[in-house]
Amino acid sequence: METKAVRAFREDEGAPLCGMAHQIKDMAGFSFLMLRTGLGLAQCVLDKALLEGITEGCALRLYGEKVADERAPGGFELRVSKAEVLSRPSSPLPPQIGKYNLGMALENELGIRPVALRNLKKRAVFKVQEGIVRGFRGFLESQGFTEIHSPKLGLSGAEGGANMFRLPYFGDTVAVLAQSPQFYKQIMVGVFGRVFEVGPVFRAEKHATARHLNEYTSLDFEMGFIDSEKDVMAMETGMLRAVVELLQAEYAPQLKILKAELPEIDEIPYIEFTQAKEAIAARYNRRIRDPYDLEPEEEQLISKMMLEETGSRFCFVTRYPSKKRPFYAMDDFDDERYTRSFDLLFDGLEITTGGQRIHQYDRQVQKLLDRGMDPAEFEDFLMIHKYGMPPHGGLGIGLERLTMKFLGLQNIREASLFPRDINRLRP
Amino acid sequence: METKAVRAFREDEGAPLCGMAHQIKDMAGFSFLMLRTGLGLAQCVLDKALLEGITEGCALRLYGEKVADERAPGGFELRVSKAEVLSRPSSPLPPQIGKYNLGMALENELGIRPVALRNLKKRAVFKVQEGIVRGFRGFLESQGFTEIHSPKLGLSGAEGGANMFRLPYFGDTVAVLAQSPQFYKQIMVGVFGRVFEVGPVFRAEKHATARHLNEYTSLDFEMGFIDSEKDVMAMETGMLRAVVELLQAEYAPQLKILKAELPEIDEIPYIEFTQAKEAIAARYNRRIRDPYDLEPEEEQLISKMMLEETGSRFCFVTRYPSKKRPFYAMDDFDDERYTRSFDLLFDGLEITTGGQRIHQYDRQVQKLLDRGMDPAEFEDFLMIHKYGMPPHGGLGIGLERLTMKFLGLQNIREASLFPRDINRLRP
Repeated sequence: METKAVRAFREDEGAPLCGMAHQIKDMAGFSFLMLRTGLGLAQCVLDKALLEGITEGCALRLYGEKVADERAPGGFELRVSKAEVLSRPSSPLPPQIGKYNLGMALENELGIRPVALRNLKKRAVFKVQEGIVRGFRGFLESQGFTEIHSPKLGLSGAEGGANMFRLPYFGDTVAVLAQSPQFYKQIMVGVFGRVFEVGPVFRAEKHATARHLNEYTSLDFEMGFIDSEKDVMAMETGMLRAVVELLQAEYAPQLKILKAELPEIDEIPYIEFTQAKEAIAARYNRRIRDPYDLEPEEEQLISKMMLEETGSRFCFVTRYPSKKRPFYAMDDFDDERYTRSFDLLFDGLEITTGGQRIHQYDRQVQKLLDRGMDPAEFEDFLMIHKYGMPPHGGLGIGLERLTMKFLGLQNIREASLFPRDINRLRP
Repeated sequence: METKAVRAFREDEGAPLCGMAHQIKDMAGFSFLMLRTGLGLAQCVLDKALLEGITEGCALRLYGEKVADERAPGGFELRVSKAEVLSRPSSPLPPQIGKYNLGMALENELGIRPVALRNLKKRAVFKVQEGIVRGFRGFLESQGFTEIHSPKLGLSGAEGGANMFRLPYFGDTVAVLAQSPQFYKQIMVGVFGRVFEVGPVFRAEKHATARHLNEYTSLDFEMGFIDSEKDVMAMETGMLRAVVELLQAEYAPQLKILKAELPEIDEIPYIEFTQAKEAIAARYNRRIRDPYDLEPEEEQLISKMMLEETGSRFCFVTRYPSKKRPFYAMDDFDDERYTRSFDLLFDGLEITTGGQRIHQYDRQVQKLLDRGMDPAEFEDFLMIHKYGMPPHGGLGIGLERLTMKFLGLQNIREASLFPRDINRLRP
């Protein structure tokens, strides 16, 4: 069943160009019409007569001759011989949509996001985001990972914490929304050895910062048969390199619109948590207030120091204290005050948390007990340790954060199509 | 940072084989150990001495010589010269895991799903499911679709219905979980022209049937610049064909384990709703009870009839009555009692609902009013119609249903890693 719309995409010789009238510029005797297609802008030239009745926001099917023109986006100009108006707007577009800069405060822009996203610069962010996900998936598939889809609704109880959204389920049951696919990806390592997931996660945190969302897309992977968290770090390094290569190869027009400079990724240096804390305390003359976690300013200073010392915009901070890491984190083999876990910092912001997990049943049960948690509540999870798990580890990356940092955006909301924060559930 | 685990996956000459001891068979003087890797089973031969201390469920790194053997899975046998035990289970595996048939009632199996999925037949279902998603994405990317990630939390109100899960958000706000990415994918057609999404959707339906889940993975696409719903049907036909081709090319081992016979997809026949109703009433001597919707038995009979008449296991049912279709469905151009929408039936079950949507502002507002709905509540959505939308349409496919039907499974729970139904929120 070959239909016109299916054929049209292939842009055969003579096939019409479909798109929305993005911007119209009147010249003497003719008009430029910039047509917004899925791929970019197409510069179209029309006689005044053909333009009649066409306004910005019209959906068009344009026929004509493509003429090479280096100055035009895409390298050609369409000399329109016939224009079909497929639909018309009922109101004129907000005037900024067609301009390079939307020039609206983020708060106002988010209010009209459904149309603001038609602005080329706004749209480009999400095309690049698509590329990041494609790069992530493509690399992991090439490394033998299997994609999974784990449930987002779970039973309240086991995974405690004030940061879970709760909801009434059927009967008297209370459900929670998944904060991460952590348990499921560990379970699936026992099944496929290497797995990844791209999906939403939900955090009921009351933060209202430029780097937090209450719902975001998490890029997760988990891999078995590792010797240490270094294997996970190596896999992430390879993945990030693959993402940057893909973006440079296939998303150059969007990167150009956004004036984004992607980082070069060769080897990513790493530094131990305690060593990093002490180094920046000495170097920048600061006091260490919290010996167990990094403050946002400390993340920035560690990044700064590592950039100065190694030239890398990325750096791993390893060997986090056990105290602030979850119960499934593998403690260091030599000193159980520390874990075999890491964060990845990129230009001063944490974009990944990962590490090796406990795979031994007795050890996992003991760590739960040490923390005053009840192993009976983790029966489903502990089943995998009981029946045998390979040494394994993995990580989670916030897609919006990574997009924001790659593109040098100032607020994470700019990297989420329809951001959800403590004040925002629409559009 | 090239580490051992990263290298190991490439299976260089001399690289060890990593996996779990899936099944051990003692022979005279030596043992067969079936190693479960991410790719399948590897047949390994060990001396009794090497096997000492190895039980089913151990994580192993095996060194040795690969010897071609046609009878072995993967076409080789590993003559093990050295075995490293990376971890041991604390309990013996449930005995069925290593067998071909798990031989447990579904109810019991779901209780131990985290380990039951290690059974090769159970695991194969989800490898095929991965293939379906890869085929869906790959085809749509080749057709110029952009992948999006829309929010699953929304504001209660606009999209009513008893079938929404509700939850307290911040302050006094009530949030709902998305039943579908419908509004967002329509919005994004205005941005990218063609979009798709793979993500979870949530339905608070009290059904307890073999074909419903309360959370499932939805494959959605939406495309602009169509002439009618026929374009959407053509795109779906192409996509399904691409999925079947990919499965046959890259998932043959799993299909063999599952003894699945994939359908051949050439052109998919279609029949109008009313015509179909009348035809099966006459042919199978039935009374028409509900003229506006199809009962499950009617779906089966239509499929049966179309298979007999056309040889196709798939058939589109088109021109559904407006009464049972949502407010955004485009009414038929000639007769507004019907819509430009369709379902796709596969072996007697609906696996897709799709159609053309209303793109004109006035028409959409009027249809809301006609249904007693308040356009003010749909302000965010109507924004796109107001400022101009191309004629467009799309569809949604339940991934688990499609997997179930492709593989001839009897219960949709078999095609969901960790199914969520009215009685089940764990594991």
